[in-house]
Amino acid sequence: MNPLAGRDILSITDLTKEEMEQVLDQAARFAQALAQGQRLDLLSGRILATLFYEPSTRTRLSFESAMHRLGGAVISVAQGRLSSSAAKGETVADAARVVAGYADVIVQRHPAIGSAQEAADAADVPVINAGDGAGEHPTQALLDLYTIRREKGRLDGLHVGLVGDLKYGRTVHSLARALAHWSVTMTFVAPPSLAMPAEITAALREQGCTVHETTDLRAAAQVCDVLYVTRIQKERFADPDEYRALRGSYVVDRALVEAAKPGITIMHPLPRVDEIARDVDPLPNAAYFRQAHNGVPVRMALLALVLDAVS
Amino acid sequence: MNPLAGRDILSITDLTKEEMEQVLDQAARFAQALAQGQRLDLLSGRILATLFYEPSTRTRLSFESAMHRLGGAVISVAQGRLSSSAAKGETVADAARVVAGYADVIVQRHPAIGSAQEAADAADVPVINAGDGAGEHPTQALLDLYTIRREKGRLDGLHVGLVGDLKYGRTVHSLARALAHWSVTMTFVAPPSLAMPAEITAALREQGCTVHETTDLRAAAQVCDVLYVTRIQKERFADPDEYRALRGSYVVDRALVEAAKPGITIMHPLPRVDEIARDVDPLPNAAYFRQAHNGVPVRMALLALVLDAVS
Amino acid sequence: MNPLAGRDILSITDLTKEEMEQVLDQAARFAQALAQGQRLDLLSGRILATLFYEPSTRTRLSFESAMHRLGGAVISVAQGRLSSSAAKGETVADAARVVAGYADVIVQRHPAIGSAQEAADAADVPVINAGDGAGEHPTQALLDLYTIRREKGRLDGLHVGLVGDLKYGRTVHSLARALAHWSVTMTFVAPPSLAMPAEITAALREQGCTVHETTDLRAAAQVCDVLYVTRIQKERFADPDEYRALRGSYVVDRALVEAAKPGITIMHPLPRVDEIARDVDPLPNAAYFRQAHNGVPVRMALLALVLDAVS
Repeated sequence: MNPLAGRDILSITDLTKEEMEQVLDQAARFAQALAQGQRLDLLSGRILATLFYEPSTRTRLSFESAMHRLGGAVISVAQGRLSSSAAKGETVADAARVVAGYADVIVQRHPAIGSAQEAADAADVPVINAGDGAGEHPTQALLDLYTIRREKGRLDGLHVGLVGDLKYGRTVHSLARALAHWSVTMTFVAPPSLAMPAEITAALREQGCTVHETTDLRAAAQVCDVLYVTRIQKERFADPDEYRALRGSYVVDRALVEAAKPGITIMHPLPRVDEIARDVDPLPNAAYFRQAHNGVPVRMALLALVLDAVS
Repeated sequence: MNPLAGRDILSITDLTKEEMEQVLDQAARFAQALAQGQRLDLLSGRILATLFYEPSTRTRLSFESAMHRLGGAVISVAQGRLSSSAAKGETVADAARVVAGYADVIVQRHPAIGSAQEAADAADVPVINAGDGAGEHPTQALLDLYTIRREKGRLDGLHVGLVGDLKYGRTVHSLARALAHWSVTMTFVAPPSLAMPAEITAALREQGCTVHETTDLRAAAQVCDVLYVTRIQKERFADPDEYRALRGSYVVDRALVEAAKPGITIMHPLPRVDEIARDVDPLPNAAYFRQAHNGVPVRMALLALVLDAVS
Repeated sequence: MNPLAGRDILSITDLTKEEMEQVLDQAARFAQALAQGQRLDLLSGRILATLFYEPSTRTRLSFESAMHRLGGAVISVAQGRLSSSAAKGETVADAARVVAGYADVIVQRHPAIGSAQEAADAADVPVINAGDGAGEHPTQALLDLYTIRREKGRLDGLHVGLVGDLKYGRTVHSLARALAHWSVTMTFVAPPSLAMPAEITAALREQGCTVHETTDLRAAAQVCDVLYVTRIQKERFADPDEYRALRGSYVVDRALVEAAKPGITIMHPLPRVDEIARDVDPLPNAAYFRQAHNGVPVRMALLALVLDAVS
């Protein structure tokens, strides 16, 4: 029995480094099998329920694709707020407990922090958190790790820049915490009002990471092996002028990539609006679509592991 | 050929006692097969269309789970009012007739009484009514019967209490009519303004049932083997004070269960709001989540029978 | 390798007559296999993504049914405008490029002309256009051709009447252009303000078609082998009185069919409102429901051909 069998996946911090490596290794095996056109029927006869109380097309579709690629079936609530019994006042716990009778594993997205834990406590099948508001989104962090390892061939020894809204950005918090298990250097590139929370920076340093902070994207790009770009949302600023003034400083375009450290990898959790210019797309450095596609093998690995179909 | 092959399932009153027993027996066989981890492929290659003109997550997901558990496929309209051609003025009949060319069986939910019959008349594949407004919801009645029989080991000789809104409650009407095929005693527990319609009570007595009516939930709980609880909706009362005054009298909590007839079974069609207190959930008497889960084997049985995949 | 393998299907004008015939022939083989109850597993292990930025129940369900009838799996966005990342500003191109990593073929519906091309340029899997606003809807034209050939046994030598809104009607534009590959006579029956655009009529004549134009539906019905009826929408008229005055002249009812050319075939892309009276439905001439059902074998053929599962 593998250590993830029957487990809920609620936070990246629930996983040890060894467990993360198990997921990444299994994902790599699945990616190879897919590339070779192999049919996988490991989850034939099993059912995944995707419960999305708020829409997230990319995450939902990649989980559903992962389940189908393993031969499994899917039942889905794509817009829980409109179509589920939630409108009648049903709790997340009751809904999860009921759906656990219809499916072998639940993937849940919900706008409230802690809702994934609430579902997991009620359901007697594994629950995978696909985002609980400003809380966690652990499978995004795993596919980010997988992408870095795949693009660079390793995690140890890399210099990773995290760019954009580091204050509110759930994905960069999870990724930073996950990366800290390896010996990486991190540079945080953000306007002061959107800087990485001090307690996260402190925790990373305690774990032995070298952490730099800057507002200079161009300088960071000279030294980083990977730039992980996120959107800066207008809504975060009380003063729209402040937004307009700094916005351009956090845009990655072709000129920036060409002046950056050779071979730099550009990542983004998508969807992007204009924080990565479209002229970057054709460059080999642009890894963000490959990153999105990596969601499938990584989620295949998670589903197969929690359902104990691989060891 | 089984007598349900090719049949529409529109109302619980369409089914004879023998046909209901056939469904319950088949559901029990499927439940056992699922519990043993057997793969069932009886409906492999067949397609279920779920047409939900109003949302009903639980019903839709349990039908879809049932179809997948039998190896079948599903196509779905989860929110007909928003996403279907209904907005363009298409009739239920035209829609059903078209979808009958895409699927082998249709499960329909629609807010208008009689809409299931309308679909069934138009479609040349079996139509199962998953609720037509204040009309019928026969598969709920079947899973309620199945649950009572499974929890109690029998139907004959039981005393069943129906609690809450008995005037407008579709599920309690169907369940009462279904139970009347067995020799049961029923106690109706409701405020006078939400009492069971007199014509239903009269019909039940004519069929030989002993029927009591009361407003005293506590007293009923002393004598009933099963309490079937439903929600009392604020909207049913012209005077909000009346609602507030009586609301608490129809709440099942732990103290009530502990003072009730030993071994009493508590059921609810879900979702619940606060008519069953959460402190009841851990008690062995709390059967409502098991009841929800029973939707899968019961709907497997119905699908397999109307598609003539079992006999 | 078949000439449609790996191809995008964006416009009916992209297909040669030979390619259309290949689709129709393959559809006929699939229809026969379905009628004989054969299980087809040609697309087992493959995934279709249906991306519907605007709802179109009939088109989406028939594509999904087609995929399941071939043993494939489906992931779906049924209401892109509400549930996808589109709300966050993501482009159609980015969305398609991401989803191409989750699926083997994409079927897209989007309200903007050219959006199918945009998706196809970005995605590295085949994209099938299921309607791009006032643009194209090529699979509708193919199923229309298939229906005419199946009902009449041939395409050459027929006289086809197109009725209703010929100015804005996407389906009649595509169908007329497709039919022009065969030696057919066409009669356009429309109020002057909704006549077929002159450039289409000119192009058809240039291709060697005989084209008539009239406002007299009754006269046209005397000479046509097929009447293809479409809805006249009130919104097209600045003056509601004009709409009310002519509306009745474009309604096909039983009396009209009985006075028409014997054996006339009545078609409609559905949904209809009242442009075909319900008393026509029982007549053998009423082909519109068979037409809708033909969507399944025709879309099976397209999916199997672009995924190179048949030759």
